[in-house]
Amino acid sequence: MELKEDERIDDLLADRSMQIIQSPTKFAFSIDAVLLSDFATVPRTKGKILDLCTGNAVIPLLLSRRSKVPITGVEIQERLYDMGCRSIALNQLNERVDMIHGDLKDMPDHFKNNKFDLVTVNPPYFQTENKNHHNYNEYLTIARHEIYCTLEDVIQSCSKLVKSGGKVAMVHRPSRFVDIVTLFRQYKIEPKRVRFVYPKKGKEANILLIEGMRDGNPDLKMLPPLYSFDEEGNYTTELEGILYGRKE
Amino acid sequence: MELKEDERIDDLLADRSMQIIQSPTKFAFSIDAVLLSDFATVPRTKGKILDLCTGNAVIPLLLSRRSKVPITGVEIQERLYDMGCRSIALNQLNERVDMIHGDLKDMPDHFKNNKFDLVTVNPPYFQTENKNHHNYNEYLTIARHEIYCTLEDVIQSCSKLVKSGGKVAMVHRPSRFVDIVTLFRQYKIEPKRVRFVYPKKGKEANILLIEGMRDGNPDLKMLPPLYSFDEEGNYTTELEGILYGRKE
Repeated sequence: MELKEDERIDDLLADRSMQIIQSPTKFAFSIDAVLLSDFATVPRTKGKILDLCTGNAVIPLLLSRRSKVPITGVEIQERLYDMGCRSIALNQLNERVDMIHGDLKDMPDHFKNNKFDLVTVNPPYFQTENKNHHNYNEYLTIARHEIYCTLEDVIQSCSKLVKSGGKVAMVHRPSRFVDIVTLFRQYKIEPKRVRFVYPKKGKEANILLIEGMRDGNPDLKMLPPLYSFDEEGNYTTELEGILYGRKE
Repeated sequence: MELKEDERIDDLLADRSMQIIQSPTKFAFSIDAVLLSDFATVPRTKGKILDLCTGNAVIPLLLSRRSKVPITGVEIQERLYDMGCRSIALNQLNERVDMIHGDLKDMPDHFKNNKFDLVTVNPPYFQTENKNHHNYNEYLTIARHEIYCTLEDVIQSCSKLVKSGGKVAMVHRPSRFVDIVTLFRQYKIEPKRVRFVYPKKGKEANILLIEGMRDGNPDLKMLPPLYSFDEEGNYTTELEGILYGRKE
């Protein structure tokens, strides 16, 4: 497998069953992507999955362990798209996982009535009002800040791309929770399952996992909290199970 | 103190420092009211507090331990209003705590520009579509079901009664969380602090505590979860501290 510039091949799961191409200056996956891949309700044998803002295809790769259905990742940055394509090939998943180099806002026109059972997305978290907060690295800035898409763009696209009764699963910051549920409702995605991730006991949540159903009825379940670290600063057993590739 | 029909005097706090008049057929306070009284951000020495749907004045009584400011309870059911008045007298709190017998929807006209620093409310939880779910007891039905006021009525009144920059604190069911944050925003109360209460580890949340600020900026804090029971089925130390009257 060809590696470019400062790219490297990392183990995606601790059992070394999957690898991923990463780059410290272009893109490396975060724990948030791993948590979302674990949290989402996946169609197991029928249907298809779309992952927006897919980066180096970390979520499609992880979801391929939980589902046998076709998975498509969409990435706007060509260099990351290319890393994702090579990561898919590296894991010999070309038959089930593919990538589109494009803007998520164009995907509803691209797919038309060809809609998905699950749309996942780990979007840029940071609003762009304060330019000083931008990352000086262009690749990372685009991945982390609302440069090419706002939260509303993301949710609107999800709404158009998911089937009626299908699921939209997102990871984001808890501070945006109210914006997210408001936009979900506005775009007919009814929030159904929410899980907050806390760094450790006694601290405020730092990660939000949310899943909604297109055209669903209101009935939110607030799932048990997930703690990242125990009192000694080690991964909790539950987080370890998620990070190290708990099988289903 | 005069007691009517099946009323009794209960200890409100385990240290026996406060009592409350209750009735198994009219109204008895729930843990939810105690949790809200603990959760709300109270003005300590300046300002004033309003409690809507106050029942037998359980929340004003509990808040009087945390704050020296005047507290007013509003109750639509005359019999419960009367229990509340007598409970206030029983605790010799007439100088600081008073009751209004009235409809919360009339309170904005009643108070006009005389607005509050904190409005608390433990509203009826159940929507009224299915009449079969109604309690056969009229008093309890009105306290628990959206008969005299909907969730939107409650939040609209809170919005009109609270000062700009003042707080609105509510206890409700997690399943209504999305409705609540949507209505909060619609009525200019920005959700700021949320805490979910879980019956025990591994279960879904069953109580929602939420506080918003009138005209506040978006910035939600998701507080650490509160567990009611430990593995052995006993109250957790934290819940015990709240129920048994932790002093500040």
